[in-house]
Amino acid sequence: MDFDKFVTKTDRITARSRRFECIRLHLGEPTFEFPSVVKEKLKEALVEALDKGVTRYTPPAGLVELREVIADKLWEKNGIDADSREIIVTAGGTAALSLVFRFFAKDSFVAIPDPGWFAYPSIIRVSGADVIYVPEQEYGYEALLRAREEARKHDKELRIVVINSPSNPTGYVFNKEQLKEIIDFAEDYSVYIVSDEVYEDFILRGENVSPASLSREHVFSVYSLSKTYGLTGLRIGYLVAPDREIARKLTIAQLHTYVCTTSFAQYVALVCIREHIEKEYIDQWLKTIRDNINYIDELLIRRNIKWRKPIGGIYVWFPLPNVDSWEFALKLLEEKRVSVAVGEDFGTKWNEYVRVLTAADAQVFREGVKRIFELYDEIAPH
Amino acid sequence: MDFDKFVTKTDRITARSRRFECIRLHLGEPTFEFPSVVKEKLKEALVEALDKGVTRYTPPAGLVELREVIADKLWEKNGIDADSREIIVTAGGTAALSLVFRFFAKDSFVAIPDPGWFAYPSIIRVSGADVIYVPEQEYGYEALLRAREEARKHDKELRIVVINSPSNPTGYVFNKEQLKEIIDFAEDYSVYIVSDEVYEDFILRGENVSPASLSREHVFSVYSLSKTYGLTGLRIGYLVAPDREIARKLTIAQLHTYVCTTSFAQYVALVCIREHIEKEYIDQWLKTIRDNINYIDELLIRRNIKWRKPIGGIYVWFPLPNVDSWEFALKLLEEKRVSVAVGEDFGTKWNEYVRVLTAADAQVFREGVKRIFELYDEIAPH
Repeated sequence: MDFDKFVTKTDRITARSRRFECIRLHLGEPTFEFPSVVKEKLKEALVEALDKGVTRYTPPAGLVELREVIADKLWEKNGIDADSREIIVTAGGTAALSLVFRFFAKDSFVAIPDPGWFAYPSIIRVSGADVIYVPEQEYGYEALLRAREEARKHDKELRIVVINSPSNPTGYVFNKEQLKEIIDFAEDYSVYIVSDEVYEDFILRGENVSPASLSREHVFSVYSLSKTYGLTGLRIGYLVAPDREIARKLTIAQLHTYVCTTSFAQYVALVCIREHIEKEYIDQWLKTIRDNINYIDELLIRRNIKWRKPIGGIYVWFPLPNVDSWEFALKLLEEKRVSVAVGEDFGTKWNEYVRVLTAADAQVFREGVKRIFELYDEIAPH
Repeated sequence: MDFDKFVTKTDRITARSRRFECIRLHLGEPTFEFPSVVKEKLKEALVEALDKGVTRYTPPAGLVELREVIADKLWEKNGIDADSREIIVTAGGTAALSLVFRFFAKDSFVAIPDPGWFAYPSIIRVSGADVIYVPEQEYGYEALLRAREEARKHDKELRIVVINSPSNPTGYVFNKEQLKEIIDFAEDYSVYIVSDEVYEDFILRGENVSPASLSREHVFSVYSLSKTYGLTGLRIGYLVAPDREIARKLTIAQLHTYVCTTSFAQYVALVCIREHIEKEYIDQWLKTIRDNINYIDELLIRRNIKWRKPIGGIYVWFPLPNVDSWEFALKLLEEKRVSVAVGEDFGTKWNEYVRVLTAADAQVFREGVKRIFELYDEIAPH
């Protein structure tokens, strides 16, 4: 296996940006400080976990109490009617994706949105499957049918369609009609949907619809505590399988991949979800994200750069016309000490695009964006 | 993939034993209470991790400070000269094994000791490789050469030889000459050794020799905090790769499997290893284990049951002549409320064997063992 092809340009920016102080806007995680009340709750939870002896192996699918709290959350927030035996607590969203791809798409194709999260192709290929890009703007019955035909030209099946709504990087949010159309396709051609909803709490306009609230038979739903709670280091996500039997199989696969997730971390997750601690701060976070988007929108308009404002997620995704985004990102890091994610990692034709984190303090974000345009104006005068 | 074949009889005992109060001696983890000084240190470490903001993604191979402390430990305790870039912090020992098997033995054979840990065959097969048993008593050049020929009869290569010393279940500890012989074989036939040393701190007689202290070129070494610190729920282990390039590849594979391990848990591991907190209690643990072994030894001798006393590890492994160990384990759990691990899970001919945890409080262990022989005397009179 050629491992080098699984290292993206953005991964290289990540590695380089660790070497010095800089404004880190390439990241895939909110960088807000926790309110102290939240920090105290997390500490309490960790100490409580130790006092209660939650220091041993848990069941491979996760603590029963945690899965029950997740089942309640899924019903109340996502409209998904799942019981605890259909839920697997995983080592973040990535582990959930990896498990499904390894065991449900091996030697087959997985369709992903173009542009889409730059780690999807690597997670899919490391899992032993292959990738077909489908333009996000066309994500629906016809385009997926063409993807299926494309797969068959390689004598392989299209087994999984990934939906990522709200999207990384575009911030697009699929509506109910679009989701129904994709579900129709999945049902007609016995394909599974993997619905990656790790940005579910970052909705700026309209509402978030979970595909599994419409139909569960062909849908794996993936959630994570990484973004909502700003706890990417917790490594707790969860997978809702289409049914108990599939959950049972993937639980066995998880048992023989890493046994179970960290017991303390599961306990923290239990407290976070049960006590809805995100309510302490999420509105404030969303307000800052909206302000950040409006700030950059003005600067883009001023330069006549056309882009789509996100309606969800934690990023802005826009072109820098006449610039190679890899060269730009490198220069930006070296000369201006700002890191951004590199467009070409996100799909087939995004060489002039960058992705910038909006879930950052307004002051930091503005300074970072100011420097981005400083450099842009220097090298691509208009 | 037929997932049911990856569920062992002992897994079923585990599941059943959760339903009621019982003496749990089937477990693969020490069940001693922590001394309160250790408990306090763990709490401090968790709170400190939060205060320092160790709540985000870490580098995929683990925190640099942690890998540096591990490198020191490897040198001082194992005689292994490895630098931090050759070390990957993994989600327990199982994740380390899974990574190596997935990417270095795919579609090939892995040799494992017979008897050997019941999860090896499942971890190997879920990773896409296949298993050859080699009698533990014969583990050496000739037997491994025969295993290689056996693999070639199936048109496949033998890629990996697993050494598990101290052994689960037998408590056998390989000496330097035996290890050298296995390393010779590995070098002559370009095979990797995976040295699973998760029981390294449980040496009852003699010394523990790490194969990688003799030669590193063909050796992956696997360690874990699960057993030494009684923290199976931490899910922190580590892998020492033969060289930096292999470590780099497996780090990329880990990134796309679950990103990294839990940041708090890494911080706890850092404190445990740096401060040698096992020194607070390990001698006491070993004393109890020795006493437990002597206790059961008398009961076995009294019944004329021949067995080998372990020289390491946390188990006793012995036959119960004229008994089917699966039926016995089930009956023992139902009628006597004691759980044991089922012999046939451990290899090819151990239907009359059971594995019993010795890393348990003397009183609990004795009561459990008393009930084991109560049942044995009832159903297999002698």
